[in-house]
Amino acid sequence: MDRYDLALIGFGGVNRALAELIDERGAALTSELGFELRVVAITDLRLGSLMQADGIDLSAVLALEPGANFAPFAGGDPEPRNEYVIRNTTADIVVEATFTNPVDGEPAISHVRWALESGKHVTTTNKGPVALAGAELRALAADHGVRFEHEGAVLSGTPILRLAERMFSGLRIRGVQGILNGTSNYVLGRMEAGLSLPDAVAEAQELGYAEADPTADLEGSDVQLKVVILANEVLGADLTTADVSRRGLSTVSAAEIAEAQRQGRRWKLIGDAHRNDDGSVTASVAPVALPLDHPLAGVSGATNAVAFDTDLLGTVAVSGPGAGRVETAYALLSDVIAIHAGRGALIGAATDV
Amino acid sequence: MDRYDLALIGFGGVNRALAELIDERGAALTSELGFELRVVAITDLRLGSLMQADGIDLSAVLALEPGANFAPFAGGDPEPRNEYVIRNTTADIVVEATFTNPVDGEPAISHVRWALESGKHVTTTNKGPVALAGAELRALAADHGVRFEHEGAVLSGTPILRLAERMFSGLRIRGVQGILNGTSNYVLGRMEAGLSLPDAVAEAQELGYAEADPTADLEGSDVQLKVVILANEVLGADLTTADVSRRGLSTVSAAEIAEAQRQGRRWKLIGDAHRNDDGSVTASVAPVALPLDHPLAGVSGATNAVAFDTDLLGTVAVSGPGAGRVETAYALLSDVIAIHAGRGALIGAATDV
Repeated sequence: MDRYDLALIGFGGVNRALAELIDERGAALTSELGFELRVVAITDLRLGSLMQADGIDLSAVLALEPGANFAPFAGGDPEPRNEYVIRNTTADIVVEATFTNPVDGEPAISHVRWALESGKHVTTTNKGPVALAGAELRALAADHGVRFEHEGAVLSGTPILRLAERMFSGLRIRGVQGILNGTSNYVLGRMEAGLSLPDAVAEAQELGYAEADPTADLEGSDVQLKVVILANEVLGADLTTADVSRRGLSTVSAAEIAEAQRQGRRWKLIGDAHRNDDGSVTASVAPVALPLDHPLAGVSGATNAVAFDTDLLGTVAVSGPGAGRVETAYALLSDVIAIHAGRGALIGAATDV
Repeated sequence: MDRYDLALIGFGGVNRALAELIDERGAALTSELGFELRVVAITDLRLGSLMQADGIDLSAVLALEPGANFAPFAGGDPEPRNEYVIRNTTADIVVEATFTNPVDGEPAISHVRWALESGKHVTTTNKGPVALAGAELRALAADHGVRFEHEGAVLSGTPILRLAERMFSGLRIRGVQGILNGTSNYVLGRMEAGLSLPDAVAEAQELGYAEADPTADLEGSDVQLKVVILANEVLGADLTTADVSRRGLSTVSAAEIAEAQRQGRRWKLIGDAHRNDDGSVTASVAPVALPLDHPLAGVSGATNAVAFDTDLLGTVAVSGPGAGRVETAYALLSDVIAIHAGRGALIGAATDV
């Protein structure tokens, strides 16, 4: 039986949900997947750090009282000590799930770098490292014969990147369009129902769909990062966020939304990346009034979706959750499964180097 | 460089489109996919049979005049001679694309059986063998250390079966719902626009979406076969068509369609298979008035879609083409790619037997 030892960097909602999954259905997963998962290190800004090479008792960690930290545990420390833990853990895989920093991607980029440099696979749901340093980190992983997996960085557990990589062999993907932010999609739907932008935002905040400062969601900077990832990973481009033009929801008026409904159209905040005839890739975020028969027009509420424009199949679209603790934790699990499946190939690749 | 030799059984729209693909972009596919494709045998009811172990000139075959047959070619015969060709061809892979017989699946089931028995992989887009003899043919393939691939039997080139198999590891799939017939979906859309059922059908026939006898499309027997495949392959059931209850479009009135629109609902012909609490699987085909925020409600025109109900991700839906010559030919190509990718595993499996 194979076993993967994990180091969880950040112990907020997502990594906590992953720990719960492993704790509650570890045995079932093992019998289904053919490998065992064990957590041997955890770091967290509030909780500090914890290293136990023979496996952490996840029930105990998950039951910590608010305000408590890892100091009383064997191998525990009240400080996060991220670099030390990442470099020195016995983990095979480092699971990076700290907050996204859209400006410079730190400290997550450093976390990923330290892990890859010390020969550990990385899985992350953090958009920052993928959007802002994807090429560098992929190259670093290849240099060290390990994997840098990040399915959850675009649509949480909905398998978008892996689908594009594995299910479309032999096709040419000409472009990708997506509804990549659930908050803005929910708000637009409520504006269609007659609410003003502020009222729709207030309602989304009450329901937990929108953060206290919803600017990144509504004005497209969250989508901008995801478009960079889609353009670079699916279309092989080399874009930065500065290459993705951006307009947000505040550029659409209530009157325009009502007028679109009369014309049988629906406004959606669309992230788009497409290949031009000269081979270059153009990318944007903008509200678009889609005709009702567009494959993204019917995507409602907080659901996300991506439509791939292909030469032989035309449009193939995938919709599913774009957020959520458990949904995003599943993305991490799917990355571990991909690392497991690719193991033989990797050993070969590392030997070739 | 690996090479796969193909025998094309049936040379109608789909296998002809595959031959065009190989003829027109064989070199590009080879450099992308890492293997070469060569056609060494073709049989067809009208054209007869043709066997050329060193490769058939596809341009010549594709340029045949109407009414001509394979008799004048070296290795040609005016008779299809399916059994002889399938058993004796030097092909590695038999590509079955004859018509679907929804009653007993013949002669396609025999074609597949002969191929597997003689140690050849099979790819097919034919629903008959998969829906009516899937378990037997999978077992036969395993016995002979070859593959029985049939991605195109449900949604043409849209990768539904392979997505369920490969992208959802670690999840429990509780059910599958789909819009699995483009003709009936187009007709329903036109009835929403105010047309009567006969007028909508006549329009669909003019556009080439509906056949002269549209009964199988409109009354759900086409969907019934696809639901059997989804239930058995995705949910591991062991259903026959008799286990799938069926109601077609004629059970919905124009008044009910208008009333649904007033209530913010849309009628769709839904194929459904879901697991019950006792582990059994219930399956049906019926028109359903979906709420507009249902992931299948927005699937318009001749597009098809499948929604998977999963435990950790909730609903993940995929929409794309469900028919078309090139789209379905791509399904065959994707099967060949899967056979190529699984080669190592197969050699191991065959050795173990």
